[in-house]
Amino acid sequence: MTLVVQKFGGTSVADADRIRAVADHVVRTRRRGHDVVVVVSAMGRSTDDLLELAYKVAPEPPARELDMLISAGERISMALLCMAIDDLGEPSSSFTGSQAGIVTDTTHGKAKILEIRADRVEEAVAAGKIVVVAGFQGVSTDREVTTLGRGASDLTAVALAAALGADACEIYTDVAGVYTADPRVVPDARRLKSLAFEEMLEMAATGGRVLAARSVEYARNHNVNLHVRSSFTWEPGTWVKKEEEVEKAILSGVTHDTSEAKVTVVGVPDRPGIAARLFRALADESVNVDMIEQNVSVTGLADISFTFPKADLTVAMRVTEAIAADLGAARVAGDSDIARISLIGAGMKTHPGVAATMFETLAAEGLNIEMISTSPIRISCVVRAADVEKGVRALHAAFELETLQP
Amino acid sequence: MTLVVQKFGGTSVADADRIRAVADHVVRTRRRGHDVVVVVSAMGRSTDDLLELAYKVAPEPPARELDMLISAGERISMALLCMAIDDLGEPSSSFTGSQAGIVTDTTHGKAKILEIRADRVEEAVAAGKIVVVAGFQGVSTDREVTTLGRGASDLTAVALAAALGADACEIYTDVAGVYTADPRVVPDARRLKSLAFEEMLEMAATGGRVLAARSVEYARNHNVNLHVRSSFTWEPGTWVKKEEEVEKAILSGVTHDTSEAKVTVVGVPDRPGIAARLFRALADESVNVDMIEQNVSVTGLADISFTFPKADLTVAMRVTEAIAADLGAARVAGDSDIARISLIGAGMKTHPGVAATMFETLAAEGLNIEMISTSPIRISCVVRAADVEKGVRALHAAFELETLQP
Repeated sequence: MTLVVQKFGGTSVADADRIRAVADHVVRTRRRGHDVVVVVSAMGRSTDDLLELAYKVAPEPPARELDMLISAGERISMALLCMAIDDLGEPSSSFTGSQAGIVTDTTHGKAKILEIRADRVEEAVAAGKIVVVAGFQGVSTDREVTTLGRGASDLTAVALAAALGADACEIYTDVAGVYTADPRVVPDARRLKSLAFEEMLEMAATGGRVLAARSVEYARNHNVNLHVRSSFTWEPGTWVKKEEEVEKAILSGVTHDTSEAKVTVVGVPDRPGIAARLFRALADESVNVDMIEQNVSVTGLADISFTFPKADLTVAMRVTEAIAADLGAARVAGDSDIARISLIGAGMKTHPGVAATMFETLAAEGLNIEMISTSPIRISCVVRAADVEKGVRALHAAFELETLQP
Repeated sequence: MTLVVQKFGGTSVADADRIRAVADHVVRTRRRGHDVVVVVSAMGRSTDDLLELAYKVAPEPPARELDMLISAGERISMALLCMAIDDLGEPSSSFTGSQAGIVTDTTHGKAKILEIRADRVEEAVAAGKIVVVAGFQGVSTDREVTTLGRGASDLTAVALAAALGADACEIYTDVAGVYTADPRVVPDARRLKSLAFEEMLEMAATGGRVLAARSVEYARNHNVNLHVRSSFTWEPGTWVKKEEEVEKAILSGVTHDTSEAKVTVVGVPDRPGIAARLFRALADESVNVDMIEQNVSVTGLADISFTFPKADLTVAMRVTEAIAADLGAARVAGDSDIARISLIGAGMKTHPGVAATMFETLAAEGLNIEMISTSPIRISCVVRAADVEKGVRALHAAFELETLQP
């Protein structure tokens, strides 16, 4: 008998009919001979509705009470799902994060899982029940209700799968899996059968929104096989596994991201400690810097460029301008009109020439590359935002991603 | 420093504005130097909305999951109330039934409170916090979430007040207190300053809907002084206390109730065991019999009449007709067109003549009394439903209830 953890997001349980459809799928899985533990998010927009109510009541609601409030959403969806499962004739029990033994630290709103004490879940599974657990929430070492951060129901599922030694963790969502590119941009993008944890992490970090990086990291660290699939079509989706277990392909996909802005400091004297001073000041203002690039020209003056979330542009400009004036830099330029295109693939480690082909392809389309950053399995280029879709389509075609996938 | 438990019902916390008004009142109480523990119901109709959703998902939802589902409502209202209190500058903490140590038996949907382990609440109060507790819910000895039955937030408040040794338990509702009669029927009905637990119990049992009998019984057994008042006017309301502590009046009020139906069995042979057989059969079908009357005529045949909730009329008729046929009774008559008028007052024990005046008054109005039942502090008469308001007004005037109250 295998044990499967199935996680259903908010759109998958958005109303009574969708909940009954999920119950039907869970019960079919059970009747094919699997033990099933289900993790659910809150219904549809209900968490946002609760947050809206909170900010109507108080402009700065205390974090402990916010957690108490929004954790109610998953209690509702999990109880309803159990009712629907029961109605189909299978025994089931719901458990809150606390009842399921999801023990966290005391950081309200973004608690870290410290430990899973899954004995109640294990007992219920052993008793033949389908277990339904509230995603996104836990209980702190101070016995307070905590939440794990937006989208963290995936994390609950992965952590439970690890603690229970599950054979697979299925993440049901509103897309059918992980694609070689965003299908809205590249109509012939293909669904991947599988990819490696590291590739999924790079995708998550560069604009692929299917899975949050935190959950993928947890899955990699505990070697939990993930299966991303759609609760609308119920078709097999994409597996995320150890690199050794993944069918080999040079590249897995092209991602793009228009959520960042860029600041460039021009003409900085090239002295030790200058970059350190700038990025410490940005960190102190909680600007989450992503890419950094520094070029030293023959004149002995450096240009420093960096990217970060668009929402932080005003703060980043203020911090950078203050330091630039201090250093005698020539100029600071802010730019929110950028986009990043990334090529991801574990195979590029052993296939030289991927970077060259990427740059040639973008050049042939007339795209100017403003910044470049790389990891062993990723190459990212910053280009003009207006060019991004053209660039993604050209790269997808150049590397034949529509056909190369197994 | 006194400790006050304040309970707010669903209409008192129906939206963000009402929640802020409640927070304001709670904070004022605190700033007048009282420790405050608040018990809240779910917002407005939200429990009904959740139930509706449940029955959409499954026609017969399991009781454990129903409790998990509907207990979410109070989590939401209590967290929002804490946010509003915090916004006014007073520290507060919310506690679920489980966190507040409301330990119950394992009867889902109508659990009985076994014990209050209030140490977390006491610690928070000692730390200077306003404590907000979810009404209506607890945790069973099996560590399952339970609910205490509809309207049981009052019970949570009374039980907490008893466990904490509170000086008073204030029940805020949408009426301003307990009246000498329903003000919609008797426009000059007066709000009582106080009445005895026993009188309140009789009122609850005979149509006064302000407090549920269960909460009043608990308050009487643990000697918790109740103060019933309006969260719309914030005026002082009605105290419910030990009889010795209540200002003396002969009568406290006239109640009426049109929720019952009557069955009469005519011409039953007067043999031992016949009533036992009939009422055992009715109990076996869960017909909740209220009043019973039996008259034996000179012919040796008896008439038996009894009342019960209208919804049970079909069942009661079926059961009674089967037995009546068996006994050779002449006839069975069902009647859902009845009403009960009750006169309640602890003073009637020492003031003879109340019953005589009551019967005379109803007779003078042309009302035929169909059944009579009494307790030491109550007299009830069954009359035609169409006559009930006329009867209530006549009795209220005859006993000068509009002026006699202190």
